[in-house]
Amino acid sequence: MTADLRIGIAGLGTVGAGVLKLLAEHRDLLRQRCGRGLAVVAVSARDRNRERAVAWAPARWVDDPVALAAAPDIDVVVELIGGSAGAPRALVEQAIAAGKSVVTANKALIAAAGTQLARAAERAGVSLLFEAAVAGGIPILKAVRESLAGNRLTRVYGILNGTCNYILTNMQETGRPFAEILEEAQALGYAEADPSFDVDGIDAAHKLAILTSLAFGCAVNLDAVYVEGIRDISPADIAYARELGFRIKLLAIARRDGAAIEQRVHPCMVPLDTPIAHVGGVFNAVVTEGDYVGRAVFEGRGAGAGPTASAVVADLVDIARGLEVPAFAVPAAELEAAAVAPMAAHRGPYYVRLLVVDKPGVMADIAAILRDERVSIESVLQRGRSPNEPVPLVLTTHDTEERQMKAALAKIARLDSVIESPHLIRIEHL
Amino acid sequence: MTADLRIGIAGLGTVGAGVLKLLAEHRDLLRQRCGRGLAVVAVSARDRNRERAVAWAPARWVDDPVALAAAPDIDVVVELIGGSAGAPRALVEQAIAAGKSVVTANKALIAAAGTQLARAAERAGVSLLFEAAVAGGIPILKAVRESLAGNRLTRVYGILNGTCNYILTNMQETGRPFAEILEEAQALGYAEADPSFDVDGIDAAHKLAILTSLAFGCAVNLDAVYVEGIRDISPADIAYARELGFRIKLLAIARRDGAAIEQRVHPCMVPLDTPIAHVGGVFNAVVTEGDYVGRAVFEGRGAGAGPTASAVVADLVDIARGLEVPAFAVPAAELEAAAVAPMAAHRGPYYVRLLVVDKPGVMADIAAILRDERVSIESVLQRGRSPNEPVPLVLTTHDTEERQMKAALAKIARLDSVIESPHLIRIEHL
Repeated sequence: MTADLRIGIAGLGTVGAGVLKLLAEHRDLLRQRCGRGLAVVAVSARDRNRERAVAWAPARWVDDPVALAAAPDIDVVVELIGGSAGAPRALVEQAIAAGKSVVTANKALIAAAGTQLARAAERAGVSLLFEAAVAGGIPILKAVRESLAGNRLTRVYGILNGTCNYILTNMQETGRPFAEILEEAQALGYAEADPSFDVDGIDAAHKLAILTSLAFGCAVNLDAVYVEGIRDISPADIAYARELGFRIKLLAIARRDGAAIEQRVHPCMVPLDTPIAHVGGVFNAVVTEGDYVGRAVFEGRGAGAGPTASAVVADLVDIARGLEVPAFAVPAAELEAAAVAPMAAHRGPYYVRLLVVDKPGVMADIAAILRDERVSIESVLQRGRSPNEPVPLVLTTHDTEERQMKAALAKIARLDSVIESPHLIRIEHL
Repeated sequence: MTADLRIGIAGLGTVGAGVLKLLAEHRDLLRQRCGRGLAVVAVSARDRNRERAVAWAPARWVDDPVALAAAPDIDVVVELIGGSAGAPRALVEQAIAAGKSVVTANKALIAAAGTQLARAAERAGVSLLFEAAVAGGIPILKAVRESLAGNRLTRVYGILNGTCNYILTNMQETGRPFAEILEEAQALGYAEADPSFDVDGIDAAHKLAILTSLAFGCAVNLDAVYVEGIRDISPADIAYARELGFRIKLLAIARRDGAAIEQRVHPCMVPLDTPIAHVGGVFNAVVTEGDYVGRAVFEGRGAGAGPTASAVVADLVDIARGLEVPAFAVPAAELEAAAVAPMAAHRGPYYVRLLVVDKPGVMADIAAILRDERVSIESVLQRGRSPNEPVPLVLTTHDTEERQMKAALAKIARLDSVIESPHLIRIEHL
């Protein structure tokens, strides 16, 4: 039997504790599956004396996580601190330089520096794996890197943030406003005290940037991701979505458009007959479209100690078994610096909700602006009448270029009879 | 750059042609992803002179597929003939003995002889891979073998036969009978001229036996699979399922029950709020439940040239990249000879549809029999009245042991007022 794989873990928060627990509970099972043991020899976290639900002994305690990189008795460093700079980045860089493989759940770091780190790992002949960084327990990175390797992927999209999906699902089920449900989600531990990372779409953007690189063989390019969060979604939008046969989901979408790559994260109206419309609560889902395999859907828990530990340990199992594949499926030096498809050139149908004064001529003014910008109206909803009072006016469009839609909305916003900034949600036909 | 991986393909039907087409179309992409070329050096099929949509030259033609096993210029044999005995089995056995890796889509062969073949492959130090044998384009075997390796799986189930799912979906959408839709499916190429392999559940049983072995680390045991097909599902059952809030699906289910393994393939009533209820048409889906990852759902195309070729090529990519994992996740010699949980001991709720004469006392007789067998009734549906005429009587039960349910039904069938064999469908709470 091969010698144990010797592991050093940096970060003993929820995920780190989950990994320790899993490795202890399934020690024999993992030994059988890997043909060798997975042994945690050292751990590092901020506070040695903190009460923890899981025992780290007999592993030794290391105060400075970066010191794990230099420890001669460690084969693999597991980085679970999080954050794109400082100690976690130094630890990963130095571990690779020292010839150690690295497993991390750190999406911010991989989204910021994935290409460079992958290149360093390949030069050093070590593995850099980060299955836990995208969609938690869903094994989507390995699926794209290995199982779908016979395909040219054309589009990859999904629900990559469980907090947003929980809030939107709850808004849909209860009709209550965003702020109220966010507060509850924070109390339940489904949302952070500072929720902006989740609800403003940043977390999903990190994950999408990583997934895009793997799916299309291009360098990770977080700056190329167009991002909008869900703060502006109102109960009115939720109700109109239902009436129009849609659900509102925060989607992360990457698509190859000729030589360019489109990457965007924003709320979408999705038709009820697509699988992703039915993914509720904190669940995540990823849909891949390949030229041979067609559409494949992967659904599961996107966060939490158990699912994330499952993903981290899967990477450790790969390393223990000696499986080696480039982090982004092709050698990092060959990752394409793909052109960015600008959001202004995006084409698709749109949902627009306006608050207008109910008086003759309003619809004519709006229709004239849309005509001038060559935006074709698909449907108009105006329920009820309240002469000279504010009433909602909802319209959906046929496929339109984003720059035209935005130009039209800017003009519409300036109409006297329009008394609130227009609300726009993109419709996705999936 | 490493030398090309030299491939010999036996069988040039739909799948074989798909593999040839994929390898030709994505030659450069695959070379980049594998760090070496994938070269088809020889092919074998029944009729050399048959018109084919895809070119096999410059590969050489070999009349006897089994001869591929001995060819010194072949590294990997791809077996796409199908069938559990004869040439395909001889080819796989001899290829392994000759030190060649094997990729196959042959579920019948792996279900019949997977454990022995895996053992032979491990002795020979070669890979035996069969991703295409289960759920076509869905990469479920790699997911279970690698991505979920940190989990003890508790249950695995899914829709593993696209033909049955197509027929049931169509019955549900149109209300038409099985025989009529089967005939159409045959005309459309979704069902074989002899449909029994699909509609009697045998194909799903083969796939389940393979999946079970991987999921639970036990020897492949096809004989242990309880199998029922969908021929007896009537439009009446479809309509009652809708009324009761269910859909009818042919499910393949494997569950660890203490030391024993339960494996069964049969029509199920599944609640609408479970993801698998919404998997329609020819799509397949697999749900895994693991102790850390929780529930994960994988959905995609389960058959067809493209999806199957995608799975076959994924296996070839693994071999080209030098990834080596035991076929069933643990060494074949360590696969457990697990006890079989007998179907008679299965517990769950049941749906029963009877045709009874509408006269006083019938319900009392039936209720007395159920009480005597300790079967607890959950609901009874009897719509309309036709004194002394046959009327349908539908009931659902609380959790019941299969042997009690069957004993009760045998007694009920003997009642004078019951004028047709009872129809039973198991309800699955997923």
